[in-house]
Amino acid sequence: MSLVVVGSVAYDSVETPLGHRDDVLGGSGTFFSLAAAAFTQPSLVAVVGKDFRPEDEALLADKGVDLAGLTREEGKTFRWGGRYHADMNGRDTLFTELNVFEHFAPQLSESQKNADFLFLGNILPKLQASVLEQVESARFVAMDTMNLWISTAKDELISVLSRMDALFINDEEAEQLTGQRTMVLAARDIQAMGPKLVVIKRGEHGALVFNGDDIFYAPAFPLENVVDPTGAGDTFAGGFVGYLAATDDLSPANVRRAAIIGALMASFCVEGYSVERLRHVDSAAIRARYEAFSNLTRFDSPKL
Amino acid sequence: MSLVVVGSVAYDSVETPLGHRDDVLGGSGTFFSLAAAAFTQPSLVAVVGKDFRPEDEALLADKGVDLAGLTREEGKTFRWGGRYHADMNGRDTLFTELNVFEHFAPQLSESQKNADFLFLGNILPKLQASVLEQVESARFVAMDTMNLWISTAKDELISVLSRMDALFINDEEAEQLTGQRTMVLAARDIQAMGPKLVVIKRGEHGALVFNGDDIFYAPAFPLENVVDPTGAGDTFAGGFVGYLAATDDLSPANVRRAAIIGALMASFCVEGYSVERLRHVDSAAIRARYEAFSNLTRFDSPKL
Repeated sequence: MSLVVVGSVAYDSVETPLGHRDDVLGGSGTFFSLAAAAFTQPSLVAVVGKDFRPEDEALLADKGVDLAGLTREEGKTFRWGGRYHADMNGRDTLFTELNVFEHFAPQLSESQKNADFLFLGNILPKLQASVLEQVESARFVAMDTMNLWISTAKDELISVLSRMDALFINDEEAEQLTGQRTMVLAARDIQAMGPKLVVIKRGEHGALVFNGDDIFYAPAFPLENVVDPTGAGDTFAGGFVGYLAATDDLSPANVRRAAIIGALMASFCVEGYSVERLRHVDSAAIRARYEAFSNLTRFDSPKL
Repeated sequence: MSLVVVGSVAYDSVETPLGHRDDVLGGSGTFFSLAAAAFTQPSLVAVVGKDFRPEDEALLADKGVDLAGLTREEGKTFRWGGRYHADMNGRDTLFTELNVFEHFAPQLSESQKNADFLFLGNILPKLQASVLEQVESARFVAMDTMNLWISTAKDELISVLSRMDALFINDEEAEQLTGQRTMVLAARDIQAMGPKLVVIKRGEHGALVFNGDDIFYAPAFPLENVVDPTGAGDTFAGGFVGYLAATDDLSPANVRRAAIIGALMASFCVEGYSVERLRHVDSAAIRARYEAFSNLTRFDSPKL
């Protein structure tokens, strides 16, 4: 099934307790589409500036990302800088330069308008709505969001959310959106707003997947070394939705598999700066880590 | 197999965002032994004051806790007061009154000295060592600890740790003890200090169980309402070790079952203040929640 993702392509400058990198490839659209490309050929709709490096474009193309929807505008590529706290969980944004992203007005091609699966990365809810209006009859529409839009554009966010099949959101944002303290109640409130599938991301603690009445806990993989958490959430969503699009199976059992796929792609993402580790992931590595996830959570009936 | 636990019995005063309770039954020994009593008959070694209420003693006895080792001294029972933060994760200690606990010098009876399983609750490392010296030939010895002893009695702590089969510790304490940022590295360092089994508790995010080379992720159960987290960690350990003692099986598969038993007992604990919910848990409720944990984490092979 065809998959279209609309999101950002950025150059990130990242500081962690272990080191730093400047102007490395990032952005929600980048991480999502690279992860999804391990399972299907995602079509990326995004904008970059004249400074976008040919080798970064080649990397995406080589991994199987369709770049027909990547437009190049006068000006510089979106830039973000951040510094991670000592425990690698929290981070502070040091700067955000929207550059060409400021006037991003995604226009889908005829074939993209017929997408079967659509993912709306974390962009202004108004832009998410404008994309949704261009897509004729997607089988599955999912979105991400962030605290900024919950604070500043809540009505537009709730409006676009009402037309979604799935929402990816982190735990703090879920509490901010609903006012509920437990994720069970927050997810139920969000489901009442529209999406049947609510995926609550909890960083190094994994994700809770509320699929109608079905509740699934996808753990994060316990890693020896976490190098750079940037893009982990987008990578999780890319693996998740990319796998769903590739298998074209929205059954509860397959949604659970998709969540594990998302978690394992995210576990690769954080093992390197930027897309350094993710770009080298092949199907053998994916199968091996899927098996490692199975081993991690397996237990059998008790002697009670 | 016989199980002895040495810990505190306390009266707690607890404030949460949802309400408060004063002078309710608490303490590490109380929660541990109540949880363990669902599977075996634990013997509790602890001290209380003259104000210890007959109905609290009756509650423990009725649930099957052997109270021959509960001594009653002149003075008041240990008291602790705490206030939970809005998210129910963090908490501030409002007061600690050691009272009779200040001069607690646990003396085990002849039958307790022959315990097969021994759990040393979170008391001064020197006291833990004095108990350990009284126990002749336990098959399995486990302990808990806390940030205060890591700061103030690290040498004694490491000394007693070297003689342990298992350590229960939370993630912040594991980092404090080892200086390692990831739990995989922290657990490996702790294993090198002695215990083969390192259980890292992460509150509402569950627990990571490092059993030699085997790594297991026991999730916390996603609950609609969390009333009072007090005692959850001790309840987790009580279910875990109580189940191991009852089954007398230290195989990796059974240690995984024990971790799920611990997590499910903790999930009951936090559903009420003090021991309100825990005291009413029966084997049917345990079996039902074990099945719910299985449903929560089950996933099958991918279509890759």
